[in-house]
Amino acid sequence: MTSALDAQRPTTLDLGSARALSCRECGHQIPLAAEFACAECFGPLEVSYEFGKITRADIEAGPKSIWRYRGLLPVPADVDTHPNTEPGMTRLVKADRLGAALGIKNLWVKDDTGNPTHSFKDRVVAVALAAARQLGFSVLACPSTGNLANAVAAAAARAGWDSVVLIPSSLERAKILTTAVYDGALIAVDGNYDDVNRLATELAAEHEDWAFVNVNVRPYYAEGSKTLGYEVAEQLGWRLPGQVVIPVASGSQLTKVDKAFREFGELGLVEATPYRIFGAQATGCSPVSTAYKAGSDVIRPVKPDTIARSLAIGAPADGPYVLDSVRRTNGAVEDVTDEEVVEGIRLLARTEGIFAETAGGVTVATAKKLVENGKLDPDAETVLLITGDGLKTLDAVEDKIGPLATVPPSAAAVREALSRR
Amino acid sequence: MTSALDAQRPTTLDLGSARALSCRECGHQIPLAAEFACAECFGPLEVSYEFGKITRADIEAGPKSIWRYRGLLPVPADVDTHPNTEPGMTRLVKADRLGAALGIKNLWVKDDTGNPTHSFKDRVVAVALAAARQLGFSVLACPSTGNLANAVAAAAARAGWDSVVLIPSSLERAKILTTAVYDGALIAVDGNYDDVNRLATELAAEHEDWAFVNVNVRPYYAEGSKTLGYEVAEQLGWRLPGQVVIPVASGSQLTKVDKAFREFGELGLVEATPYRIFGAQATGCSPVSTAYKAGSDVIRPVKPDTIARSLAIGAPADGPYVLDSVRRTNGAVEDVTDEEVVEGIRLLARTEGIFAETAGGVTVATAKKLVENGKLDPDAETVLLITGDGLKTLDAVEDKIGPLATVPPSAAAVREALSRR
Ligand SMILES: Cc1ncc(COP(=O)(O)O)c(C=O)c1O
Ligand SMILES: Cc1ncc(COP(=O)(O)O)c(C=O)c1O
Ligand SMILES: [Zn+2]
Ligand SMILES: [Zn+2]
Repeated sequence: MTSALDAQRPTTLDLGSARALSCRECGHQIPLAAEFACAECFGPLEVSYEFGKITRADIEAGPKSIWRYRGLLPVPADVDTHPNTEPGMTRLVKADRLGAALGIKNLWVKDDTGNPTHSFKDRVVAVALAAARQLGFSVLACPSTGNLANAVAAAAARAGWDSVVLIPSSLERAKILTTAVYDGALIAVDGNYDDVNRLATELAAEHEDWAFVNVNVRPYYAEGSKTLGYEVAEQLGWRLPGQVVIPVASGSQLTKVDKAFREFGELGLVEATPYRIFGAQATGCSPVSTAYKAGSDVIRPVKPDTIARSLAIGAPADGPYVLDSVRRTNGAVEDVTDEEVVEGIRLLARTEGIFAETAGGVTVATAKKLVENGKLDPDAETVLLITGDGLKTLDAVEDKIGPLATVPPSAAAVREALSRR
Repeated sequence: MTSALDAQRPTTLDLGSARALSCRECGHQIPLAAEFACAECFGPLEVSYEFGKITRADIEAGPKSIWRYRGLLPVPADVDTHPNTEPGMTRLVKADRLGAALGIKNLWVKDDTGNPTHSFKDRVVAVALAAARQLGFSVLACPSTGNLANAVAAAAARAGWDSVVLIPSSLERAKILTTAVYDGALIAVDGNYDDVNRLATELAAEHEDWAFVNVNVRPYYAEGSKTLGYEVAEQLGWRLPGQVVIPVASGSQLTKVDKAFREFGELGLVEATPYRIFGAQATGCSPVSTAYKAGSDVIRPVKPDTIARSLAIGAPADGPYVLDSVRRTNGAVEDVTDEEVVEGIRLLARTEGIFAETAGGVTVATAKKLVENGKLDPDAETVLLITGDGLKTLDAVEDKIGPLATVPPSAAAVREALSRR
């Protein structure tokens, strides 16, 4: 499974305690390399580790970024000495007002909008870049519908790497601008996300030095989402929450938060208390929720039609593993309408002062629905993952909100406007 | 003095080690209260303290937010137990690529876009809210052109307070939406920022329970900017930088970073090494820079005309104190054209992967100019304060950037587009 790339690689491939890539389906193992599909069965490959001893004190003494968990990621120990965007350690806030509105007694919100480009994608891209550097790549690339485009272009700029970002040409102007500003090669493709994704797979095969973060280095990239789970547990005071609600696009993030909780338990960093994992989708793109509700193991691809564009993956690569996680942990997958998504955004903003993008609206609205239908236990400690920023999806709310009034500059006029409230 | 003032304080008023409000002009002191102008001479009031012993270890053991410095702010010791947005501890990044572009050997960027509403205003608002709670207010208010509006509306929502935010009706739709979403009372006023500001002063006098953060509780609010200085010093490893470049609107932030560095030196938290403070303005609103260059002590108000709208204060309240700070520390004030501002935004994005708003472009472009005209020492350790987010001022760059090409979904078309680069 080695390639011509070996010649360019650092003499010793240092990916920390990562030891191999293992097939999630058949268990076949291969050496660490830029591979993503099993040669035996085409199943997805995942990073396997041989962790050394890792203590809470080690982690607490580390950098205030995802690199405090570097011993649990496929990156070298000196990863933080290379220029990178230093994502992570975003705030976990006690959400009593949202909790009261939802009827959940003990609620937390993990606010990942504080990341460098304001979504959790900075985490996965930082890990992908670090691994790609070790694997001998020199260009960072991706197909994306927005958040990933921002994160890849920014991380490459900071590292001094060239980037190639492919987007559907129909993308919102705001997401185009916030990628283009970093001055990599941004290419708009006349086609939908699936077309762009296929094109990326083709280009990855042709360009030995291009690391498509979510294609040819996907196993490393995906591990970055574990840091969301690690942080939640550490920030709760080295404890696992009882329940967590996670938005699902490809499903990678959800399965990796599950993996993070299990690893922390196995390593003795937390008590391995039971937890339940819930997946959140928009009804307009809910292939995983549909399969879950049907009791099926098969995810049937859909053509997305939802304002939650960042979650609009109709054929989610990790869908089956999402079903495994939620079933194993006694959770569920639920979906909500676009109207509920907007209500979710507004409810979170109004109660906690956090302005999430549509994906966050999906998470909040799904939590509400799960309480209502009795699937989420209102008495268990619950964490909602808010993974993207409202500034990037203003379109979703712009018809619903605005000033109370427009008045002349007089105190009487202000009083009058307020009295009509 | 202290004990006499203590006697006058309401028994419930706990503002930490803050002891009085002192006039910056005549030194007259009054007890801690919701006052902002000296009754003797109309000079601005500032918080005075009697600091207890504060050690690096105390601070390091504190919360990962501005509240680690609560002992140095006019807030009670239990401030972090009340719901608040928990701003601060944003990343300080080594900016070698930007440094190379600017010709500065040892350069850092303080990236305050990581705050909850993506500007440094979350810091000042959090301190204002905490003080306002102690002072008996129940509504958070402000006049604003954008960043402050976001921060006030979000902080009030999180705290469960009502908010009244006044903005000029001409404000960009993005800034209106990102305030309105928090569901306070947002009122658009037909007039410019000066009209809105005057209106706020009038309303503050009428409404006993409204804390206008930058009007009647301004002395407390302003102290929040000290945390930018504290964090820079702590993140450098308990050391003061040699030079710092700071954007100037009202001038409050610059004078408070100066105050923070002095306090850290006086408290022995850092060695009191010399530092130089530089102010950055847009030429289209450069009253402080103009006064500095003329060697004058008098700031002549201007009518702002610049894309750097968040810095567009034509009559800066703290302008004279900015002149004091830069002259005392052997710094300077400089200004840059709107074209240079856009170039500054793009340079920072391209080299460090940080997308700043126009105020950040002013800082970067000013640093460049200060190196070119020999005022900034290229060999001294330098910090640039990036205080606001590019997502809020997309208009400034939208004509200049975009995709390299729009192509059909074929690898050959992508290759061709890249070859033309
Ligand atoms: C903001 C946001 N949240 C969640 C997700 C879901 O990620 P995953 O593909 O790992 O399920 C995405 C994917 O793009 C996203 O942009
Ligand atoms: C992003 C940003 N930076 C800097 C400033 C300057 O602040 P000051 O008024 O304290 O000079 C402002 C003021 O609104 C701002 O919005
Ligand atoms: Zn296999
Ligand atoms: Zn006075």
